[in-house]
Amino acid sequence: MLNNIRIVLIGTSHPGNIGAVARAMKNMCLSSLYLVQPKIFPSAEATSRASGADDVLARAHVCNDLEEALQDCCLVIGTSARSRTLSWPVLDARSCAARVYQESQSHPVAIVFGREHSGMTNEELELCHAQVKISGNPDYMSLNIAAAVQIIVYEILMAERAGVDSGDIVVADDDDEALLASADDMALFYQHLEEVMIQTDFLNPQRPKFLMRRLRRLYNRARPDKNEINILRGILTAVQKNISE
Amino acid sequence: MLNNIRIVLIGTSHPGNIGAVARAMKNMCLSSLYLVQPKIFPSAEATSRASGADDVLARAHVCNDLEEALQDCCLVIGTSARSRTLSWPVLDARSCAARVYQESQSHPVAIVFGREHSGMTNEELELCHAQVKISGNPDYMSLNIAAAVQIIVYEILMAERAGVDSGDIVVADDDDEALLASADDMALFYQHLEEVMIQTDFLNPQRPKFLMRRLRRLYNRARPDKNEINILRGILTAVQKNISE
Repeated sequence: MLNNIRIVLIGTSHPGNIGAVARAMKNMCLSSLYLVQPKIFPSAEATSRASGADDVLARAHVCNDLEEALQDCCLVIGTSARSRTLSWPVLDARSCAARVYQESQSHPVAIVFGREHSGMTNEELELCHAQVKISGNPDYMSLNIAAAVQIIVYEILMAERAGVDSGDIVVADDDDEALLASADDMALFYQHLEEVMIQTDFLNPQRPKFLMRRLRRLYNRARPDKNEINILRGILTAVQKNISE
Repeated sequence: MLNNIRIVLIGTSHPGNIGAVARAMKNMCLSSLYLVQPKIFPSAEATSRASGADDVLARAHVCNDLEEALQDCCLVIGTSARSRTLSWPVLDARSCAARVYQESQSHPVAIVFGREHSGMTNEELELCHAQVKISGNPDYMSLNIAAAVQIIVYEILMAERAGVDSGDIVVADDDDEALLASADDMALFYQHLEEVMIQTDFLNPQRPKFLMRRLRRLYNRARPDKNEINILRGILTAVQKNISE
């Protein structure tokens, strides 16, 4: 059903951006790309940046105007960073994706991205039902068009997968005030543990990797605090004192 | 508090990617960038692709190895598209962001991105508590490093804005087929551990309670599987064979 979701790019200047958008889309299972008056297309640079998503480029629809690209679409979402006197209903990327995905079950929908520098004209925005605004840094919002598309299509895929069961749940023990062991503490503990395993002939230093990896995974999963690491290292030291030479 | 969240890039080949990552970060209010052995840095190409996020580049920490970049971090999340025989707990981008944001309230956390072509080594992954895997097209997962960072940092900002109060930590360890250790397995393991601690004079049987409780809590939190308990008991047996009477 993601075939019902179109990504529309208006007047893209840099063909590399078209390729990067195709790549972003294919990564998230979208393939329906519409190009309104691209400056240069097709182009080797677009194909190169598409990096294996050239099938999306090959099937892209090149249109003379936005109306043509929006044919049959019942929901059209515009994107624009510019603020306007006449504001459109604004959705964030997540609620945009939820709505787009839901409506794509029954009819084609489009998300429209404006020109790299000047965005969408007022006339183009007027063809939209709503506007999506990606949350970000209020003091520096400078998303490249491919980065913006990447976030939107990621949210669409997440909306599609939303029903999926999350699997096993591990509940952390969060009443403990003790500081968690740092990466440094853990490194010293693993070193100590490995030393003891070698001294007791449990670990063959010629083939050590798999065993240590398993133990790392176990202890990392437990997220020990500093006190716990001290206890474990105390045990290791006590063992070493008692080992027969 | 987003200052407590580090983005760590290992061995990045293309300086343009470093710039694009800085831009992705700044758009989402992150600024703490660590570069482990970048091929070329600083560079004009990185600065150009950063497109106004050059302050993030200027303050980037260049490190000799991953351990250096992880100093003081209590939570380390790795990224890797490669599947492995020995799997790490896997989070999707959203649950990763919730956990990272939550823990960043009290200590530094790191999200580590591997080399463009070869990802992370097993040794580097062993320094991680979990792995994040961005949902995507099972037949074409080819996210550029900047696109992957863009999605992750976007989710982190969304987690912050949602005022996420997840409390519990959700870890979906979905590849691992091994059966969890049963209560009986665990009881036998604790009995064995206690025995060794007494034999090595680490535990005073007159006052045993507190120490065993701490250890139980640690290991229970890890939810060991049967194989892991077998390894731990193997270590204990090896120790006993080597203890001087």
